[in-house]
Amino acid sequence: MYKVYGDIISGNCYKIKLLMSLLDIEHEWIEMDLLKGEARTDEFKSKNPNAKTPTLELDDGSYLWESNAILNFLAHGTPFLPNAPLTRAKVLQWQFFEQYSHEPYIAVARFIAKYLGMPEDRRDEFNAKQKGGHKALAVMEQQLRQSTYFVEDHYSIADISLYAYTHVAHEGGFDLAHYPEILAWMQRIEAHPKHVTMEQFGG
Amino acid sequence: MYKVYGDIISGNCYKIKLLMSLLDIEHEWIEMDLLKGEARTDEFKSKNPNAKTPTLELDDGSYLWESNAILNFLAHGTPFLPNAPLTRAKVLQWQFFEQYSHEPYIAVARFIAKYLGMPEDRRDEFNAKQKGGHKALAVMEQQLRQSTYFVEDHYSIADISLYAYTHVAHEGGFDLAHYPEILAWMQRIEAHPKHVTMEQFGG
Repeated sequence: MYKVYGDIISGNCYKIKLLMSLLDIEHEWIEMDLLKGEARTDEFKSKNPNAKTPTLELDDGSYLWESNAILNFLAHGTPFLPNAPLTRAKVLQWQFFEQYSHEPYIAVARFIAKYLGMPEDRRDEFNAKQKGGHKALAVMEQQLRQSTYFVEDHYSIADISLYAYTHVAHEGGFDLAHYPEILAWMQRIEAHPKHVTMEQFGG
Repeated sequence: MYKVYGDIISGNCYKIKLLMSLLDIEHEWIEMDLLKGEARTDEFKSKNPNAKTPTLELDDGSYLWESNAILNFLAHGTPFLPNAPLTRAKVLQWQFFEQYSHEPYIAVARFIAKYLGMPEDRRDEFNAKQKGGHKALAVMEQQLRQSTYFVEDHYSIADISLYAYTHVAHEGGFDLAHYPEILAWMQRIEAHPKHVTMEQFGG
């Protein structure tokens, strides 16, 4: 059975929880408290030298890390990752967009505001994150005017990757009321019968 | 024939040039001057709403963006992207590591120093990038003590992704002499008979 080392308050970890629920994948969840530095111990670095969660442990004792790489592995052969090369590449396009142009703004703003309690010495950084976050949301809104999900009108792991931090973007100061297509897309995701929320697991 | 919109001084664009050389993929390269904002025009945003290079134009007039997504698409079915699901996921693991934990430090430090000429108001940012860059290099060095390439001792697109900015890391102030495994790995990559350098194209 898979083991997942994760912190459920992290959207990157929640991605794995959500896909595993959608696919009924049994797993053991090993909760890590990132705020206490539990990912930075030597023991954990022997699992993931980059000292980040989520990290997946396979049955053979090997490890796979980076949330979006784990999603691609788990979704292989399922409807959440269609097999055509160009379709897979489009899924990746949105996942790399998420990690480079979305997460560093929206997730970091949320982390500063919600988990660090907006300390004065990080307020400038929080403010600086708003512009990049809105730029990413605008790119998403534009795509969702053209398709009901990010790739070919089907719910895929590209949507899971982008949903993870978008649905809690308000906690980073982003008002999604300006993005009606994003709001409608989030409702479609949340209507899936096997959807699980972050809050169900304490996030 | 593929069209590639790119700026050869960008490591992200060079990744595509390098893979296309290794695979003998004919293409038209449309050079964009990012310093002059050529990716931020409305015309270019109709190709890539995120206003970044590289962007690939396919024969049917559709577009694919994000350097690592393009690499996965072009390498499909070739030895640079083995087909086993876990192997592909390991390639992705290193590519997401590159975009999140490597590029934002090493590429940005290089950009500030080499292309902006180290303006005084960005010196603090340049200095702040050094720690994260060395952390990424240390993770790479550790992996290369265990394998000759990043995934399963074969040259894959994971190596191309990491090579692109690592081989010019000195331009961002990173002394690679402390990383003998990385130096040896770069030599292996450069020994490939179809290797091309950034400089060949003016980078």
